Amino acid sequence: MYKAVILDLDGTVYVGTQLTPGAKEGIEELRRLGFKIMFLTNNSMVSRRMIIRKLDEMGIEAKVDEVLNSGAATAIYLKNRMRNVKVFVVGEIGLVEELLIHGHEIVSDYRQAEAVVVGGDRYLTYNKLLDAHRAIIKGALFVATNRDHALMEEDGPVPGAGAVVAYLETSTGVKPIVIGKPERYIADLALQLLNVTPDEAVMVGDNIATDLELAKKAGMRGILIRTGLGKNKAPESITSVNNLLELPRILLNKQ
Amino acid sequence: MYKAVILDLDGTVYVGTQLTPGAKEGIEELRRLGFKIMFLTNNSMVSRRMIIRKLDEMGIEAKVDEVLNSGAATAIYLKNRMRNVKVFVVGEIGLVEELLIHGHEIVSDYRQAEAVVVGGDRYLTYNKLLDAHRAIIKGALFVATNRDHALMEEDGPVPGAGAVVAYLETSTGVKPIVIGKPERYIADLALQLLNVTPDEAVMVGDNIATDLELAKKAGMRGILIRTGLGKNKAPESITSVNNLLELPRILLNKQ
Repeated sequence: MYKAVILDLDGTVYVGTQLTPGAKEGIEELRRLGFKIMFLTNNSMVSRRMIIRKLDEMGIEAKVDEVLNSGAATAIYLKNRMRNVKVFVVGEIGLVEELLIHGHEIVSDYRQAEAVVVGGDRYLTYNKLLDAHRAIIKGALFVATNRDHALMEEDGPVPGAGAVVAYLETSTGVKPIVIGKPERYIADLALQLLNVTPDEAVMVGDNIATDLELAKKAGMRGILIRTGLGKNKAPESITSVNNLLELPRILLNKQ
Repeated sequence: MYKAVILDLDGTVYVGTQLTPGAKEGIEELRRLGFKIMFLTNNSMVSRRMIIRKLDEMGIEAKVDEVLNSGAATAIYLKNRMRNVKVFVVGEIGLVEELLIHGHEIVSDYRQAEAVVVGGDRYLTYNKLLDAHRAIIKGALFVATNRDHALMEEDGPVPGAGAVVAYLETSTGVKPIVIGKPERYIADLALQLLNVTPDEAVMVGDNIATDLELAKKAGMRGILIRTGLGKNKAPESITSVNNLLELPRILLNKQ
């Protein structure tokens, strides 16, 4: 019997600043039926607080422990592995916020860095890359929030965190630890925070390569939503829904 | 009988701002013996003019048609393929100079770009990468001057052109055309400019992965020099010299 629903955000709950059809009502129905909800996103540019505010502006209430993004997951990973860490960040302010909240120290001198954390960064410069490169060569732990190649924006795709990761991986020859989807760490962490087993949870997302791959790796049921990237492709072997309003019925049928 | 010697520059003729031992005398002896000389480097941050000035400051005279770097080779490649091209550049001023000299136009609006040319860039910003990414997605030809992972500097290795290439390759999903070593194009072009056949030329360099690989691909004899990167590793199957002063003797013995 399913107890929790893990929902991808971008392309699943909203596309840009617009909710997907039935998202608000679907989520409210899931809550009424007693499902625990977790919003799971690779976006590391924003903090959980920024995500909650965005959801709130679109009429969806969420608590901080209902949101897990790759930035927060990275901060938790570092805490579990090394306690409080001196971090050199290639990323945006939302990532810095999560690292600080979880007790890490942000350093601007690469020689002090115990870890280099990489996320999407629209303020990327050569000097930031050079210092990250030098810190990694000196032995700092190289951690990637995620390897997404690109993000969809209204004007088309823009480079994702994975592009920055590829730059540093190429220049240093060091392979990073990757936290976000489709790596298993973030799914296991979500299940742990939800306090459910893999067969008590479903993962719903629009991206076969990240969301459904993650579900498979973590032993969860994966459901494709035909919004965002999921619009065009839905192999018959995959359960799919047209929108979040259809989700409760599918989950109840399967119980 | 050998007629031409193709010499790598960085690590072979000089390391940083210091000539390798015997470089000046070795090159003068090669010239006296009638060998044509070509300096071949992947460095696209500088122009041939800047390279000649650097050599001159270290006491080695060279003419512009004795130098081929991956920036000049890229400019020639574009000219041969598409005549004069509107280029969006991710790279430094030396690369811009070579493109202009060869008749191309530099554009700052990515929508006008017919080609995106990528080299090492110490002034890299997200906006440059984003515009290059967008130009490539719109169909501009993606050309990499080279894929060197890192450059050796006095403080240690720094990111090379290959890191920038990896960023854009990841974000766009498009594979670039690569001009520099160890890709064959630059060797064939060097041989053509020297007006010799592959078996009339030797390639001398300190890097097995680029210089000697290039020699192999182009059907030239390759000789490893035990300076720069070549200091530590010299498999027995490879002919090697300790310095450029030893080179003339090797070449005469083999004739």
